[in-house]
Amino acid sequence: MAIIVQKFGGTSVADAEKIRLAAGRVIKAAEKGFKVVVVASARGKQTDQLVADAMELNPNPPKREMDQLLSTGEQQTVSLFAMALEAMGYSAISFTGSQVRMMTDSVHTKARIISIDAQRIHRQLEQGKVVVVAGFQGIDEHENITTLGRGGSDTTGVALAAALGAKICEIYTDVDGIYTTDPRIFKSAVKMKQISYDEMLEMASLGAGVMHPRAIEFGKKYDVTIHVRSSSKDIEGTIITHEVPQMEGLVVSGATIQRDMAKIGLVGIANIPGNAAKVFAHLAKAKVVVHDIVQTEISPEKANLSFLINISDLPAAKEAVEQIKSEIDCQSLFVREDIAEVSVVGVGMRSHYGVAEKMFGALAEAKVNIDSITTSEIRISCSVDEDQAEKALEAVCRVFELNKPAETRNA
Amino acid sequence: MAIIVQKFGGTSVADAEKIRLAAGRVIKAAEKGFKVVVVASARGKQTDQLVADAMELNPNPPKREMDQLLSTGEQQTVSLFAMALEAMGYSAISFTGSQVRMMTDSVHTKARIISIDAQRIHRQLEQGKVVVVAGFQGIDEHENITTLGRGGSDTTGVALAAALGAKICEIYTDVDGIYTTDPRIFKSAVKMKQISYDEMLEMASLGAGVMHPRAIEFGKKYDVTIHVRSSSKDIEGTIITHEVPQMEGLVVSGATIQRDMAKIGLVGIANIPGNAAKVFAHLAKAKVVVHDIVQTEISPEKANLSFLINISDLPAAKEAVEQIKSEIDCQSLFVREDIAEVSVVGVGMRSHYGVAEKMFGALAEAKVNIDSITTSEIRISCSVDEDQAEKALEAVCRVFELNKPAETRNA
Repeated sequence: MAIIVQKFGGTSVADAEKIRLAAGRVIKAAEKGFKVVVVASARGKQTDQLVADAMELNPNPPKREMDQLLSTGEQQTVSLFAMALEAMGYSAISFTGSQVRMMTDSVHTKARIISIDAQRIHRQLEQGKVVVVAGFQGIDEHENITTLGRGGSDTTGVALAAALGAKICEIYTDVDGIYTTDPRIFKSAVKMKQISYDEMLEMASLGAGVMHPRAIEFGKKYDVTIHVRSSSKDIEGTIITHEVPQMEGLVVSGATIQRDMAKIGLVGIANIPGNAAKVFAHLAKAKVVVHDIVQTEISPEKANLSFLINISDLPAAKEAVEQIKSEIDCQSLFVREDIAEVSVVGVGMRSHYGVAEKMFGALAEAKVNIDSITTSEIRISCSVDEDQAEKALEAVCRVFELNKPAETRNA
Repeated sequence: MAIIVQKFGGTSVADAEKIRLAAGRVIKAAEKGFKVVVVASARGKQTDQLVADAMELNPNPPKREMDQLLSTGEQQTVSLFAMALEAMGYSAISFTGSQVRMMTDSVHTKARIISIDAQRIHRQLEQGKVVVVAGFQGIDEHENITTLGRGGSDTTGVALAAALGAKICEIYTDVDGIYTTDPRIFKSAVKMKQISYDEMLEMASLGAGVMHPRAIEFGKKYDVTIHVRSSSKDIEGTIITHEVPQMEGLVVSGATIQRDMAKIGLVGIANIPGNAAKVFAHLAKAKVVVHDIVQTEISPEKANLSFLINISDLPAAKEAVEQIKSEIDCQSLFVREDIAEVSVVGVGMRSHYGVAEKMFGALAEAKVNIDSITTSEIRISCSVDEDQAEKALEAVCRVFELNKPAETRNA
């Protein structure tokens, strides 16, 4: 019998009624003949409550203790989930991260999984039990409890699927699946039937927050198909999988918008090796996450360097750059605080020409001024005025027909 | 440096303010030069809330899952407690039962401790840390989480003290210490300075609910002095320790009252070996806890057998007895539902005569009718009409001067 992993997020297990609904999903899979492994997050607002409890005692709590505290949220869900299954007539057993030897490194609050002991789970599955595993948590080599960071339960789900040899991990969530773009902005966005790991990774890093990037990496590496679907509606969601030929026929799979960006420009810096490295090393030390970087030569001796950051990082970034300014012979500095970035993503770009021109043309027609452009093998990003960002996204979505199901597009 | 274990119950860690107060106690001991190990229970009503959450999903939850669920309460407290200590400038680390290898048998919801790995705690103490351990919980040989039953954190505290070679375990609670009798009934009851393990065990089994009997057994077995004291007032409580000569000078140390008892009598049963055993085996199967048993021969062939039970067990007990009635040739059956039991406890009874007479005399003078009498080496119990129970307790307390400090008594 095949094994399936079903992961339920916090909103899908928020109360007794939701847990029963989720348990119903599990039973449906079990009745189809699957051996089911459930991964569950903390119930609804439990984690927020625990964080508030901690802050009341210590505004800067030790991370080890924070992990010790927060991991109780998932532990509560899994035992309750197992009880619900038992009440519905299905034999079930819950496990903490520690109990399935979910070994991680010791980086508390954002640990990375090293290995999982699948045997304990296999033994229970063979006895006909549904196994319910706490998401988000593991232990390090000294038995300290660790957590995997925001969205970590997705990673637990996919990593477990990989360790157990399950071909599929279902991610039950409060959206229907992955949309071609954010439907709150572009109302006629459509749900994708499938998307490749690489595209999903690009979209996730561009702020399309449905899936945890690390989970997608695990899926890609260990060949686990991820099915993102609604916990409340019984419809197919979006399959995240390896590239298949029909994906390449599609030039653009999705589009994203990132707001609240700022741009810092360093004008006329000395164009010598190592200057850019100095800037970014200094920014990294200040814990600033740098997005797209553009450098252009303005003379044999001088260059302009600019980069995008989240607006929340702006004070730290400005301070860091001011400190390094004289060292790199920077003539002047400018800051723009009204920047957004619109991107298109698609593995088809690898084999199709003219995607950039089509995007720029659409933006020109919509009278959107492009500030800067960056690209990867499967992505084109344009930074634009924040005011024009929604109009830009809409123009891009229209030209690449992201309001139509993939199979009916001409683009 | 000597190690001290300090155990804080649920009311002593109910909220952030209480946790800070408890942490203050810890710091005081640390500043006196003690290495401190803290054992903490779940915060206030947390356990009740978790039980309610479970019942909503499964009115008869699997006990393993119940333990998995409830153990989160203590885990939350210990991490918060460690955070509080850190915020107050003291280095601290929290451990779950699993993390200190608190090994138990597999009897979920009332497991018994088998062994503890003291090394992990010693290592942390040597680094100058306060170690905060989750009470009430352990793991069995298969890494299943177990719990020790009601009041189990007391047992954790004393067992840890034993394993660590600590001479003293302080039990911080919402009462000042152990009183000669229940001060809600006999207002002039006084706090005892000390009491022997054996006396405390008798009092605990007679419903004086301050301490968990298993914790007292551990203390006795491993020579750990237990200090029951107030978490809110900075005064000495009651020391539970080995018998010392001055205790023997005291005839009676304390008195107890147990209400809500019922009595079942089996009249004229065949006086042959094994008949009583049959009755109590049948009652045990029906999960009825039997208190004092009295059997009297009424002829060479016949005997009367009676016993006390909690009134809540009466329906089950009646049914069990009805089933077995004909098998033991029972002529008739009677039930009294208005029984209470008044007892006196004292190791001095071993070497003093006349305690029973003095007690019966006091009851006679107070015009209390004694229904039945049972005794142990250090205890005398009289069952009386529930209506007369308070009057009986008062009479007994007066005659044994339980309203006076031990050192000023004549009795």
